[in-house]
Amino acid sequence: MKILITSGGTSEKIDRVRSITNHSTGQLGKIIAETCLKKGDQVTLVTTRKAVKPVEQENLDIILIENVADLLETIEPLVQTHDVFIHSMAVSDYTPIYMAGFEQVAKSSNLQEFLDKKNQESKISSQDDVQVLFLKKTPKIISHVKKWNPNIMLIGFKLLVDVSKEELISVARKSLVNNQAQIIVANDLADISEHEHLAYLVEKDSKTIARSKEEIAQLLFEKIHARNNV
Amino acid sequence: MKILITSGGTSEKIDRVRSITNHSTGQLGKIIAETCLKKGDQVTLVTTRKAVKPVEQENLDIILIENVADLLETIEPLVQTHDVFIHSMAVSDYTPIYMAGFEQVAKSSNLQEFLDKKNQESKISSQDDVQVLFLKKTPKIISHVKKWNPNIMLIGFKLLVDVSKEELISVARKSLVNNQAQIIVANDLADISEHEHLAYLVEKDSKTIARSKEEIAQLLFEKIHARNNV
Repeated sequence: MKILITSGGTSEKIDRVRSITNHSTGQLGKIIAETCLKKGDQVTLVTTRKAVKPVEQENLDIILIENVADLLETIEPLVQTHDVFIHSMAVSDYTPIYMAGFEQVAKSSNLQEFLDKKNQESKISSQDDVQVLFLKKTPKIISHVKKWNPNIMLIGFKLLVDVSKEELISVARKSLVNNQAQIIVANDLADISEHEHLAYLVEKDSKTIARSKEEIAQLLFEKIHARNNV
Repeated sequence: MKILITSGGTSEKIDRVRSITNHSTGQLGKIIAETCLKKGDQVTLVTTRKAVKPVEQENLDIILIENVADLLETIEPLVQTHDVFIHSMAVSDYTPIYMAGFEQVAKSSNLQEFLDKKNQESKISSQDDVQVLFLKKTPKIISHVKKWNPNIMLIGFKLLVDVSKEELISVARKSLVNNQAQIIVANDLADISEHEHLAYLVEKDSKTIARSKEEIAQLLFEKIHARNNV
């Protein structure tokens, strides 16, 4: 099978020396990729320069991206040529529009004016004691996947922080329905450490618990192949 | 000699999943550390988890930090026990105070109110189409060094982007005077690539050009030891 995996975290530039980065080592995506490769699947891994990666090998293509715009452009054609899409990348929700000194912003009678501006400097000046950064929402890649390829098996991820199990599952189920995903892997940052990774694989009529990255990868592999053998 | 070196780039958290990061691989600090170690100096390297580092060895202490607050706390006592401080780390100029939805900010009659707020959420909600992040200036570590230890030899760095050589040297010279530094290494991001690294070692009455990271390290080593042999 042809499996498309994303891993790592995107970075959105503020200027040439600073970015807003979503934390993710890429470890989970790496283990999922390795699990599928070992069993003979063909894997395309879309990841970042800093993320950990499987060693180079037959049946593995690695594509490096940095920000959400890169990701969108890269993923659209790939979704159309793969059987499964496992979207484990930590994607920036917002990207910088404009940064200005506090005084300038406080004086403005209409903040809307800053949303059409662009910083011209390569390195934004650091004169002001307080600065104000305007950010806009990035496109939600997962919401486009089924339009690009209605037949792809879509596996999404939902990471929350310090919420109840009920809320985590409920948010994951909403994402499952809204994005027409087959599985949402729901996890809470509070339950992730170096050796443990608690996650719920939420499907339409069931949920399965996993307690490590290896177990998440193994369960995903089984569910992908079970579904495609039906 | 006891040489304190910083390298890599600091990260300031927006929330538990996002940070603002200053780009720096740590490569230059690593090469400076290795050059000094090879010649028998004792090195304390304050760096980040993601930065490249010399291999573990005798006479090398590595201390990991993440943000400017960590750095300040770590550096102050170390400055007092070292002969030379080479501050090559890319330090965040600003750190997040508060993030709010655009509508909420646009409605406010006094933006000052947001500067005393703190986000309580572990992961800031991503409902709004536009968000506004307020950031405040971080303390300038280099400006405190000579107060902590008037006898330390201080070597600072100034990175600008796409400026003229004259402007670069002039900004470096201002930093030299303001911070009572012995050398400011002035460089422009446009002149740094994988194999080249153009820099000017700006001193009170002279400047020396270097064309690679190895050359910068070698020149710094010579200048440190020349000064201390007088």
